Amino acid sequence: MLKLYYGVGACSLASHIALEEAGADYQAIRMDLKSGQQRTPGYLEINPKGRVPALITDRGVITETPAILAYIAQTHRAANLAPLDDPFAFAELQSFNSYLCSTVHVSHAHGARGGRWSDDPAVVEQLKVKVTQNMADQFETIEKKMFKGPWAMGKDFSVGDAYLYTMANWLERDGVDIARFPKVADHFKRMEARPAVARVLADERKAA
Amino acid sequence: MLKLYYGVGACSLASHIALEEAGADYQAIRMDLKSGQQRTPGYLEINPKGRVPALITDRGVITETPAILAYIAQTHRAANLAPLDDPFAFAELQSFNSYLCSTVHVSHAHGARGGRWSDDPAVVEQLKVKVTQNMADQFETIEKKMFKGPWAMGKDFSVGDAYLYTMANWLERDGVDIARFPKVADHFKRMEARPAVARVLADERKAA
Repeated sequence: MLKLYYGVGACSLASHIALEEAGADYQAIRMDLKSGQQRTPGYLEINPKGRVPALITDRGVITETPAILAYIAQTHRAANLAPLDDPFAFAELQSFNSYLCSTVHVSHAHGARGGRWSDDPAVVEQLKVKVTQNMADQFETIEKKMFKGPWAMGKDFSVGDAYLYTMANWLERDGVDIARFPKVADHFKRMEARPAVARVLADERKAA
Repeated sequence: MLKLYYGVGACSLASHIALEEAGADYQAIRMDLKSGQQRTPGYLEINPKGRVPALITDRGVITETPAILAYIAQTHRAANLAPLDDPFAFAELQSFNSYLCSTVHVSHAHGARGGRWSDDPAVVEQLKVKVTQNMADQFETIEKKMFKGPWAMGKDFSVGDAYLYTMANWLERDGVDIARFPKVADHFKRMEARPAVARVLADERKAA
């Protein structure tokens, strides 16, 4: 059985949704990120980077959302969560996921995790200033240049939709009104109407 | 024919090396990043994100290094640049590439590209302070926890080696002595001894 280590509302939500959409046999294990459980010795043996998500498989651990998402799609082919037989379409999906991981997530992280890039509390505070603008600019790029519709990558639902929903979920706390991006806002509602997504949200919102 | 838009010494070097290792039919087109050619209207039509690399295929454009690297491997199977028939091994490679993209590259970018995360020149200057420590810490993780040897992912050379070499190439300017990481340092030398890598470096070092 697969085991997913996740934090409530963290980027691990994308992998959690992908597992549920895949109909995977898995267990979701909640980490208390606020108390720093992800940096305890036991967890660092699982993921030396001290982050979520981490997916435990019978072969070993996989970390990093884009890698986990592609793995879930490849090992649950019947769920059709990625265009696995078309290298160009798969590359477009991977490009989308990589942008979310290395640009959008990084913009968001400058709000609450500025200490990654500076040890000076005044600088860390200043790094919060541009978060709203960066998130808005990057969602503008997603809305206008990347989102194909009705799903992120076109006619078929994919793991990229789970990842987009996860990032869009951060817009409000980053001071961005999702209504500025009509396609993303509509996608957000349609995602929450999916039974698999609703099950995952109910699970993540349960009291610890 | 494939076309790769690259900048000298930029992260596009990984895709450039992968194409050459693959024996691909491609043309490499140099962008002058210093003068901002990547933000000119003509290039923004190719890549609205205004960055390199961008790979032009007969189906359209692919951006983001991890996506391009997997695409090159999938479309040049004979070159054996990724474990394409083993989802777990492929996920490990993708995890490695994703870490380089979303963590190591981002650490490096706080040196010369701090303006992405702050419009305040004083803050941008302060963001240079932690670059050396972050790059050193992350290469320590690569050296001790990720690098399998003799190649990054084990016995077989992969696109991950091209990406690791590209990031290791930035250590000196980031104030980190590569000799602190014996496996990475040895890998760096072996990479430069590969004929395909030498051809790419000669091409990127040619006067414009």
